[in-house]
Amino acid sequence: MQLQTSTWQEVEAYLTRSKGVIIPIGSTEQHGPTGLIGTDAITAEVISERAGEIADALVAPTIAIGMAEHHMGFPGSMTLRPSTLVSVICDNVHSLARHGFTRMMFVNGHGGNIGTVTGAFYEAYASAPRDTRFNCRLVNWFTDRKVAALAKELYGDHEGGHATPSEVAVTQAVYPDAIKSATLDPQVAPSGRFYGPEDFRRRFPDGRIGSDPSLARPEHGERLIEVAAQAVADTYAEFLAED
Amino acid sequence: MQLQTSTWQEVEAYLTRSKGVIIPIGSTEQHGPTGLIGTDAITAEVISERAGEIADALVAPTIAIGMAEHHMGFPGSMTLRPSTLVSVICDNVHSLARHGFTRMMFVNGHGGNIGTVTGAFYEAYASAPRDTRFNCRLVNWFTDRKVAALAKELYGDHEGGHATPSEVAVTQAVYPDAIKSATLDPQVAPSGRFYGPEDFRRRFPDGRIGSDPSLARPEHGERLIEVAAQAVADTYAEFLAED
Amino acid sequence: MQLQTSTWQEVEAYLTRSKGVIIPIGSTEQHGPTGLIGTDAITAEVISERAGEIADALVAPTIAIGMAEHHMGFPGSMTLRPSTLVSVICDNVHSLARHGFTRMMFVNGHGGNIGTVTGAFYEAYASAPRDTRFNCRLVNWFTDRKVAALAKELYGDHEGGHATPSEVAVTQAVYPDAIKSATLDPQVAPSGRFYGPEDFRRRFPDGRIGSDPSLARPEHGERLIEVAAQAVADTYAEFLAED
Amino acid sequence: MQLQTSTWQEVEAYLTRSKGVIIPIGSTEQHGPTGLIGTDAITAEVISERAGEIADALVAPTIAIGMAEHHMGFPGSMTLRPSTLVSVICDNVHSLARHGFTRMMFVNGHGGNIGTVTGAFYEAYASAPRDTRFNCRLVNWFTDRKVAALAKELYGDHEGGHATPSEVAVTQAVYPDAIKSATLDPQVAPSGRFYGPEDFRRRFPDGRIGSDPSLARPEHGERLIEVAAQAVADTYAEFLAED
Amino acid sequence: MQLQTSTWQEVEAYLTRSKGVIIPIGSTEQHGPTGLIGTDAITAEVISERAGEIADALVAPTIAIGMAEHHMGFPGSMTLRPSTLVSVICDNVHSLARHGFTRMMFVNGHGGNIGTVTGAFYEAYASAPRDTRFNCRLVNWFTDRKVAALAKELYGDHEGGHATPSEVAVTQAVYPDAIKSATLDPQVAPSGRFYGPEDFRRRFPDGRIGSDPSLARPEHGERLIEVAAQAVADTYAEFLAED
Amino acid sequence: MQLQTSTWQEVEAYLTRSKGVIIPIGSTEQHGPTGLIGTDAITAEVISERAGEIADALVAPTIAIGMAEHHMGFPGSMTLRPSTLVSVICDNVHSLARHGFTRMMFVNGHGGNIGTVTGAFYEAYASAPRDTRFNCRLVNWFTDRKVAALAKELYGDHEGGHATPSEVAVTQAVYPDAIKSATLDPQVAPSGRFYGPEDFRRRFPDGRIGSDPSLARPEHGERLIEVAAQAVADTYAEFLAED
Repeated sequence: MQLQTSTWQEVEAYLTRSKGVIIPIGSTEQHGPTGLIGTDAITAEVISERAGEIADALVAPTIAIGMAEHHMGFPGSMTLRPSTLVSVICDNVHSLARHGFTRMMFVNGHGGNIGTVTGAFYEAYASAPRDTRFNCRLVNWFTDRKVAALAKELYGDHEGGHATPSEVAVTQAVYPDAIKSATLDPQVAPSGRFYGPEDFRRRFPDGRIGSDPSLARPEHGERLIEVAAQAVADTYAEFLAED
Repeated sequence: MQLQTSTWQEVEAYLTRSKGVIIPIGSTEQHGPTGLIGTDAITAEVISERAGEIADALVAPTIAIGMAEHHMGFPGSMTLRPSTLVSVICDNVHSLARHGFTRMMFVNGHGGNIGTVTGAFYEAYASAPRDTRFNCRLVNWFTDRKVAALAKELYGDHEGGHATPSEVAVTQAVYPDAIKSATLDPQVAPSGRFYGPEDFRRRFPDGRIGSDPSLARPEHGERLIEVAAQAVADTYAEFLAED
Repeated sequence: MQLQTSTWQEVEAYLTRSKGVIIPIGSTEQHGPTGLIGTDAITAEVISERAGEIADALVAPTIAIGMAEHHMGFPGSMTLRPSTLVSVICDNVHSLARHGFTRMMFVNGHGGNIGTVTGAFYEAYASAPRDTRFNCRLVNWFTDRKVAALAKELYGDHEGGHATPSEVAVTQAVYPDAIKSATLDPQVAPSGRFYGPEDFRRRFPDGRIGSDPSLARPEHGERLIEVAAQAVADTYAEFLAED
Repeated sequence: MQLQTSTWQEVEAYLTRSKGVIIPIGSTEQHGPTGLIGTDAITAEVISERAGEIADALVAPTIAIGMAEHHMGFPGSMTLRPSTLVSVICDNVHSLARHGFTRMMFVNGHGGNIGTVTGAFYEAYASAPRDTRFNCRLVNWFTDRKVAALAKELYGDHEGGHATPSEVAVTQAVYPDAIKSATLDPQVAPSGRFYGPEDFRRRFPDGRIGSDPSLARPEHGERLIEVAAQAVADTYAEFLAED
Repeated sequence: MQLQTSTWQEVEAYLTRSKGVIIPIGSTEQHGPTGLIGTDAITAEVISERAGEIADALVAPTIAIGMAEHHMGFPGSMTLRPSTLVSVICDNVHSLARHGFTRMMFVNGHGGNIGTVTGAFYEAYASAPRDTRFNCRLVNWFTDRKVAALAKELYGDHEGGHATPSEVAVTQAVYPDAIKSATLDPQVAPSGRFYGPEDFRRRFPDGRIGSDPSLARPEHGERLIEVAAQAVADTYAEFLAED
Repeated sequence: MQLQTSTWQEVEAYLTRSKGVIIPIGSTEQHGPTGLIGTDAITAEVISERAGEIADALVAPTIAIGMAEHHMGFPGSMTLRPSTLVSVICDNVHSLARHGFTRMMFVNGHGGNIGTVTGAFYEAYASAPRDTRFNCRLVNWFTDRKVAALAKELYGDHEGGHATPSEVAVTQAVYPDAIKSATLDPQVAPSGRFYGPEDFRRRFPDGRIGSDPSLARPEHGERLIEVAAQAVADTYAEFLAED
């Protein structure tokens, strides 16, 4: 059930049977020569939607821009300052809490969001509207054990850390008309640590980290979506069941 | 051209021929018994996409949650505090300015955003990253002269001010499977001024202001999208052409 | 009744008969070669004072500096960042709400304030001190129908959009010793859209937009004050009467 | 020379002969049964104006609302949060610095402002617009040695610490039509330390601290204005002369 | 070399041979019936000091209060809001960057800091003082591979997740006079996920998670300090050596 | 009783007999050629600890970095922006208030903190967690009458205003191994007013103001600590005894 295509009375009815909600959060940032700039938002959204179907969960609109300061050396990348992202998370959570939601599960598609979003949950608890109590949880679809096993099966050591074939494959399944091709040089990108945006671009000139996204196929994406959505739905069920 | 389905090299190439970008901004809020909660985001997004096609403009991801504090009395409505929205606008604009964009046109679907977003432009000018210069402009698709004329032709005095048949019709064209029906009582909602969320709900118990959205039809939506997109594209062309 | 020249016991007594208050808000910015930098604050203040007499309303101190980033290319202009202005509005409103005021009407003399101030009202509602409820309203004296008609009668097409003869005339009535004269070249200033401060100064080199302020006369100012104050007082009465 | 009654060209000319500016800052808060709520703003303003005449200094608009949280237990008191006041001070200073002013002297009428304003100066230095250098200084007219001596001569031990006869006398000189009378009980208010607003009102039920403002006379006010303005002008001259 | 016991000329000399600095960061929060409230600050500090000796690194003062909202259900716990902690990290980093430091390594003793601090680094990069470039890195002493192996060797499965014997042992080595004893019931605390402060206290009534801190001994602490400090020093050397 | 070396149950027990707490606050900034960068934090901490022993008061961790923007021209100095320091003070106070503390006494070692910290108290009162009431007070150990008398006795006119022999002596008593020597030229530093960091360094090239810290001796430090701690303890007792 999508919040965006529901009426307020439908949400009112939903609240009589559940206090849970899924909020997809991604990023808008370069994903190498063949990855879409919206990759992290697209993957979080499609997996959340499918998980919402499995779990009969309400899915809120996707937070499409995350914390991607380190990608700002590449045209088209967009970022929220960490402090802005904290405010956005708080406003999302508090809006939902005012209606009686008590279990907010963020399904995340971007590693760079993790620190700021988990910190923001405590800002949200501490500044909660009066008389509201709620729990927030972040789930990274790409670190799920079964998803990682499937990526390993499909791509072996060429999955890498950014602009990975698995995330590219998911976007290919969603946007088959936007599959890109490009010469990758080297075929498998270098790996390593990075700091700010200049440093990132210097170390990873085409934007990839450790990956060979040419291995991605739309049919992989279908499988990854299904596995990830089931994992998200399972975690959501546990989350709702916690006392 | 959608930013989310482009690569960074495609954006780099786009920047050699244009410095303009369109940013859809909507809201996630109740739209009466038959309007979708995502109405303002959906309409801004579809009209921006179509305008982008007409004008060969890059379209950034939609800001789906706006300033909707006054709708918070209805389940499912979400809002950013005005101060958060100011930060979000600044971060969007500054991200794009860092890549060399100089004409940021926001296509807006929600009256409640106007004040805060236009104020935010000056915050963005005053706090611009060094050595960047850019112009920001807000266009409300629903107040365009030709759009208003078409709405008048289609709905006469029953267009109203919130949960209008014209915005509902646009969403029907986009999501024909999510067309809702409900008894409207009264058929045409009351009109008037409002203040905070309790006040809004007290004056407008089902969320509509002055409208009869039962008049909406998907085929109206198609026409409205086309007229609005052309108007947005025309304004965008003027905006780019300004010295 | 001026807050600044009252005692706290007089305010306590006033609160037994009314919960309304008028807050003038202007700007401190260039107004062309013959307009005073304080024009927008002076006009808002004198009209508020006169309206306060007509309506027996308490008038709070004038917010003299508004959002004037676009005027910062001219010496002497001062501005609050939009985010600061939001905080100032909230603090004004919340201070008054703590004493039991429930109808805060801002009388505005500066177009550049409108967006930020109307947005700030929702920040004020959302962050209200506990158990307080209040309504905020912004009235722009210069857009009142009768005021505009009088300006049209007096100045025809030469009223323009900034440094207008009508606002200059109001300041002449208040400060007859500070009437300025200067050669205006061209006699009627150019019109058009503008963005940040450099852009503003480039398009409007002497600071005026579309106006010929040499037409202003102090006796016009007297008439404009009276018409505007009556309009403000009428709106205030309606505001208080709303349920 | 008043900024509010000058044109931008007059300010431009002023800047060729001086980089100094005086900014009055007061408060809007209870001043006991006979003191005006605007006392601290009125006194700072009149003394700044007179000092500006003596010293040929530009005087910016008065910051009428200061940090008066501790007075919020009395109807009509208004306050900026300290964090808002920091932003207001920065925006005032940075606005003036953008035009080339380098010596900003705040003339203060309210003890409660001192801590926050002096702290704000360092926020202003640290966040200065690029390539601007300026010095800020706060002068409290009521702690000047000669002013204190005159207050001692006029009121002996009954000057007290809040709602003092000397500040009341200054307002009587400015607003002779707003001289108030009331029974003071006790004649001389109690003294002592205080914390938040409830604590203040509990300790000082009518708002005075240690004072007998019934001793105030308008003619005292005239003398106090003259002595204070000369002291401010002298300090301003020293401030400008510093290397 | 401790910043606090150095002179500015000694720091000036240090900067001619190194641009690196270590900043200990901990927390002030309950650590169960036998753990010190300052555990996380004390451990981060002592390990940083020892690592500083090994690596000839400057050590800045300890950030003693971190993000511990979830511990606020227990008397004596203190917390910074995540937004405050972001500001504190930025101010620490920017202060050091203004003097020419380019490698800021935070040695962390508290899991609850990780998200917010790593997010804050990107806020620090994005808002860096002009013309400064620097890299920030967070090292959690308690997750080092060799430290974890030693804890496993010493405490097997009773190390747990909060109020662990290893962190308690480190504080025993530092403050042998403050070794506490208490009956632990159950001997090994329960484990599991938690959300806000009420939830934490409900699940973990004495504040421990999964641990049996009665196993801690000061001599373990000595060994843990040495192993952790060597690991920190090694990481620091790598960090400095990165191009 | 040190918070950092206590358990939460010990704090719980303390709260049954007292609601008071002492919070040392200092600065991390240059103190001339022979003064330690941590002087203001070290002195505040040792005096607070000793006062805590005398008064049986709980002592919270030291806020080691204060507002020292004006010292940033000297290597090693660190500063919080005033706005950050306001947040830090609020978070410290609110954390303690949530546990039932009602008397928070800050013992300060740095003149530059006074304005911002006293302002912050009112921010803390105004934004207090619901249903909490508390009083905050700042005590500057170095301005106590008896401390000043002892400094006068020891150093006469060579005490000065920054990098004073008395504060240096206190640090010598605490860190006898970190006593520094350097040629002071001139022997007694110049005095005067200062503004931002460049201005400070220009006027006071080695960082001292008006002082001859070569007069400092560790045994003076012992005496100063004892006198200052007794004064702090006396003030604390008065503070607790206030109704």
